[in-house]
Amino acid sequence: MLVTRIEFLRLARQGVLAIGLFAVFASPTITRAQSDPLPSWNDTAPKAAIVAFVEKVTRAGSSDFVPEPERMAVFDNDGTLWVEHPMYTQLAFALDRVKTLAPQHPEWKDVQPFKAVLEGDMKTVAASGEKGLLQLLMVTHAGMTVDDFQKVVTDWLSSARDPRFNRPYTELAYQPMVELLAYLRANGFKTFIVSGGGVEFMRPWTEKVYGVPPEQVIGSSIKTEFRMQDDTPTLYRLPEVNFIDDKAGKPVGINQQIGRRPIAAFGNSDGDLEMLQWTTMAGAPARLGVLVHHTDEEREYAYDRNTEFGRLDKALDAASITGWTVIDMKADWKKIFKD
Amino acid sequence: MLVTRIEFLRLARQGVLAIGLFAVFASPTITRAQSDPLPSWNDTAPKAAIVAFVEKVTRAGSSDFVPEPERMAVFDNDGTLWVEHPMYTQLAFALDRVKTLAPQHPEWKDVQPFKAVLEGDMKTVAASGEKGLLQLLMVTHAGMTVDDFQKVVTDWLSSARDPRFNRPYTELAYQPMVELLAYLRANGFKTFIVSGGGVEFMRPWTEKVYGVPPEQVIGSSIKTEFRMQDDTPTLYRLPEVNFIDDKAGKPVGINQQIGRRPIAAFGNSDGDLEMLQWTTMAGAPARLGVLVHHTDEEREYAYDRNTEFGRLDKALDAASITGWTVIDMKADWKKIFKD
Repeated sequence: MLVTRIEFLRLARQGVLAIGLFAVFASPTITRAQSDPLPSWNDTAPKAAIVAFVEKVTRAGSSDFVPEPERMAVFDNDGTLWVEHPMYTQLAFALDRVKTLAPQHPEWKDVQPFKAVLEGDMKTVAASGEKGLLQLLMVTHAGMTVDDFQKVVTDWLSSARDPRFNRPYTELAYQPMVELLAYLRANGFKTFIVSGGGVEFMRPWTEKVYGVPPEQVIGSSIKTEFRMQDDTPTLYRLPEVNFIDDKAGKPVGINQQIGRRPIAAFGNSDGDLEMLQWTTMAGAPARLGVLVHHTDEEREYAYDRNTEFGRLDKALDAASITGWTVIDMKADWKKIFKD
Repeated sequence: MLVTRIEFLRLARQGVLAIGLFAVFASPTITRAQSDPLPSWNDTAPKAAIVAFVEKVTRAGSSDFVPEPERMAVFDNDGTLWVEHPMYTQLAFALDRVKTLAPQHPEWKDVQPFKAVLEGDMKTVAASGEKGLLQLLMVTHAGMTVDDFQKVVTDWLSSARDPRFNRPYTELAYQPMVELLAYLRANGFKTFIVSGGGVEFMRPWTEKVYGVPPEQVIGSSIKTEFRMQDDTPTLYRLPEVNFIDDKAGKPVGINQQIGRRPIAAFGNSDGDLEMLQWTTMAGAPARLGVLVHHTDEEREYAYDRNTEFGRLDKALDAASITGWTVIDMKADWKKIFKD
């Protein structure tokens, strides 16, 4: 069949070819068929399960077919998309921030948990519990506009480094998961982050690191207030919790922001249990629940039931009952980080 | 230039043609050049201002160019995208719902504001004020799962009719605004609804009526709670206000859900003032603020400074100072509704 460029344009204008050509050029299956979209994954069961699921829900005519607008995939962040040990990156940020702000707060030298932070006494910081942690978060995360906070986060991430790996934190995204996010998007999924972490702490960098734009990031938040300052509208961050996007809060956050039930959910801890339940136990046929199990002490960390951050206990039990896929990082991932 | 289909595919696989073809088939400028994307608009100043803005921010190399991921446009709903007089559709829903539920609540016959609703005594309903209204909203909007509420809304909309126009409420979307939403999306904008109305009241139908998917609807909400019921995860709607997405709440809601400052905002009342300020007064060069002014008593309604619903007073004053575009419905719209 010969088609001149002019006839091509004419047909296209009539819309006759538009759909077919979109299929040819927009469909990932043609361009991807030649190369593995998940090169950092070993050819083990989890990769097969993920690929089988994606093929099932994207195959037109399949009984499991899901129309593109409904292909929502939700990902926990800490421990699922990037390293969360030995402490959440956001906590490392808060501790550094206390040190930066200390000269303006001479009183912190004598008040806990600030004193302990300044002295590097992490045991006492931990002992200050939820109340102490909340105090640290509020003085470091509130009392400024959202624009200013975004800048503080961006500046910190550009210079801070993970002590063990000696790399910027944003380079500690799991390469197999970054590939998975792209693979899902290439198959018409919308990828969302649903994290217990602060939504404004994540948004400045998730697009660059994961390809997830700010409007697809759901997280915990503090209250903000609209203020006109010298004819300039600002949003001011108040030292008051607005929403905790963790555990049973995750389905609530998903519904609040997405308004659809996802068809795939990825987590790594008991904090993700309800999100995986909400996603996979709705009675619909093809739904995917995946847990990242940290089993690689050498390349990353090994932890599950006996850890403070990212404990994987109830969710691991639920996985075997519910049929969720469990990724064994050591066995299933060729590499952990980007080279 | 002659191109065989096979060579076409070969070139496409190499990616040589992909970009060019995408430009041809995905770009609205080619297909739209022949036909007016805003046929229900008269060729008056507002249409010109909107088109000029869109061309400015989408023209690569222009000093006002905005990359596609940042092209966020936010729209109020009641009075901006569909009719809000003589009462918000959501209130009409609540009143009908009270009548439907009344047999299960014999006590309502003697208790205000329910008694007044059942007797059709709208004066007393109005006199019950915010407290009465909240009571009506809670008994009609809470106490069920989000899935059940969605069904209730969908069922009601399929049978309810606006008394004046004798059409389903969803047919009272403003045709010029529906065209505008599509025009913006064709130019790479993401269109969001930012309404004082209930987010779960809108989501079941905004995609069909406006082309706005659930995850791009921001609105007021009540609290929900995750519950496992007989091994089935549900979200239960509690009779407690979560967030009021109106006035100074709109920028807060936008930041909470989108996490970017929009570049275009459309409203019709003082409830949209802060949203328009937040969008247009950030110091960036090309931002668009638009107000729909209800001036057409014959085809729709005429109201501004002296009305209870959708009062346009302060925002109208601000428009002339700030340079927002004001749509005169009578003069600027060829038609109001779809035929």
